[in-house]
Amino acid sequence: MEENEVSERYVDDADWAPAAEQSSEDDEAQEGSVLAGQERATEPAEHAAIHIVDEDADDAEGDDLDDIEIDDPEADAIVNDALEIDETSEAEAAAEVLTDSLAEEEADRAAEAAIRAILEKERPDDGIIGEEYGSVREDAERVWILDPIDGTRSFIAGRPIFGTLIALTQGGWPTIGIIDQPIAQERWAGMSGQPTTFNGRPVRTRACKALEGAGIATTSPHLFAEGDVPHYMALVAAVSGGSPRQGPVYGGDCYNYGLLASGFLDIVIESGLQSYDFAALVPVVEGAGGLMCDWNGEPLTADSEGHVLALGDPARLEDVLEALHAAGHDHGHHHGH
Amino acid sequence: MEENEVSERYVDDADWAPAAEQSSEDDEAQEGSVLAGQERATEPAEHAAIHIVDEDADDAEGDDLDDIEIDDPEADAIVNDALEIDETSEAEAAAEVLTDSLAEEEADRAAEAAIRAILEKERPDDGIIGEEYGSVREDAERVWILDPIDGTRSFIAGRPIFGTLIALTQGGWPTIGIIDQPIAQERWAGMSGQPTTFNGRPVRTRACKALEGAGIATTSPHLFAEGDVPHYMALVAAVSGGSPRQGPVYGGDCYNYGLLASGFLDIVIESGLQSYDFAALVPVVEGAGGLMCDWNGEPLTADSEGHVLALGDPARLEDVLEALHAAGHDHGHHHGH
Repeated sequence: MEENEVSERYVDDADWAPAAEQSSEDDEAQEGSVLAGQERATEPAEHAAIHIVDEDADDAEGDDLDDIEIDDPEADAIVNDALEIDETSEAEAAAEVLTDSLAEEEADRAAEAAIRAILEKERPDDGIIGEEYGSVREDAERVWILDPIDGTRSFIAGRPIFGTLIALTQGGWPTIGIIDQPIAQERWAGMSGQPTTFNGRPVRTRACKALEGAGIATTSPHLFAEGDVPHYMALVAAVSGGSPRQGPVYGGDCYNYGLLASGFLDIVIESGLQSYDFAALVPVVEGAGGLMCDWNGEPLTADSEGHVLALGDPARLEDVLEALHAAGHDHGHHHGH
Repeated sequence: MEENEVSERYVDDADWAPAAEQSSEDDEAQEGSVLAGQERATEPAEHAAIHIVDEDADDAEGDDLDDIEIDDPEADAIVNDALEIDETSEAEAAAEVLTDSLAEEEADRAAEAAIRAILEKERPDDGIIGEEYGSVREDAERVWILDPIDGTRSFIAGRPIFGTLIALTQGGWPTIGIIDQPIAQERWAGMSGQPTTFNGRPVRTRACKALEGAGIATTSPHLFAEGDVPHYMALVAAVSGGSPRQGPVYGGDCYNYGLLASGFLDIVIESGLQSYDFAALVPVVEGAGGLMCDWNGEPLTADSEGHVLALGDPARLEDVLEALHAAGHDHGHHHGH
């Protein structure tokens, strides 16, 4: 083929480049082309089936956590609140905002405001900590921790793998966690003393027999602080055996922790997370048999400096810590386990 | 809170760590926990609506490319073949294989074999180039280029953002390209002389007025060859204005090009791509008003060394090339445009 021909065919042919005209238009063009027509599906998408592990579990149809039997009426009421909040919040609010503009911050705020309004009405004594609107009554017995859109950039880019995070802490401990993907109608729910569910069916993490070949994920390598990078890369090297194509799966945000709970990934590692980023993840991951801790294997607290590790198989904890800290001096006070 | 308490609650409580037991079981545990129950949805998922740009376009219900009027009966027949192939191939074959094991290579092979069987029956004179089974009749007038599962790692990790790629080249030029996400029932289709469609409705790229703040995506930074990294990072710096959180959205594989065609992303950059990775992408991106080229702005050919750029707004080409090559000496023969 002649280069000129190729050039003519794909570069210079005006029929193939309408966006060139489009770019000379004003803001309306951009406005009309982004997320217009976003709708929330009214039934759980059937593709959610790929994340259901236990086919022989009760034939729940993924139509809510009502399928979970909870003996404690108080806990039951709380779960119902969590569900109501989840149902009526993020997707609708975000869709309304984003139909009109690209303002992701507005979407975040509208979604959080919607959740907070429900909480203020239904649970006026409970505390609330939210990404967008800060804290009220944070010393209450029950505190809700909200991240209306975790994975904002993924959301804006049109990927169905962002999530709404809702956690309930009781006496300081996260006892309920929900990761909700509203577009695909996928919801992981973890709660104290109950197996984690995906769309109402129990899920479990998978066994991981060796670090090399483990499935590892993180949202972006650019989100690690400079001092964290050598540790992260040392873990990547141990997992991938030096082959970049066997390295981490990138992107994903909170969705990665859901996939780990369902047995699709073995390790998720991040840094710089705030409590509203990880509070909801802990009950989901641990109720599925996994472990969440900081980069020293210590339980996550507000003092963890945002260094988060999730393991599907807790038996790999020592190996992961060893690989992480092989890269140099220890990260804070590493006492191992 | 006392640290011991935290430890007891989340680390040592046996109720929260069933995977520890699981890990002592044999391979069956892993086998049963991965992708069991994968099913293909039988109706287009409603959430596909988020990727539909033009609400006022014909009220096609996304039920195939039949909605597109094609005057040429031969072209029409070819499109129908492409659809039949797409319908009966990847998802079913892959689901069957993966229900039983984690063998992604088997899934790839089974899917490609299924597509090839249809082609051999329906189009015995056409050539076929596939990722898994190589080439036959590659000098034919019409050659099909297949990548049964683009984004294998994403697929294995349970993300609904991998894709089946099917391209048809005629006289050496890709004239039809299909990016199909079988789980979410999302399909971008591009063909010569027609606007690109998403689930049957026309989509267009969006305008991008400046490099800084553009939406940029790539699958993984580890997939760039060492010599490519400075160029890639220079582009990232220009786009993100030095803020990592405004940097690339990672992961996504072929799905990124679909999102760009639908106006959710402005730039996709990759290296190391084979022709079966990008042949299907060209008609999709360019039929939506975008531009695909190599890192020098030249049209993509088998000689492009796998350096792929996709721009939603062709008006940004000079800016992107300038940023890419600001990082050092030129990449091959850069003549610009």
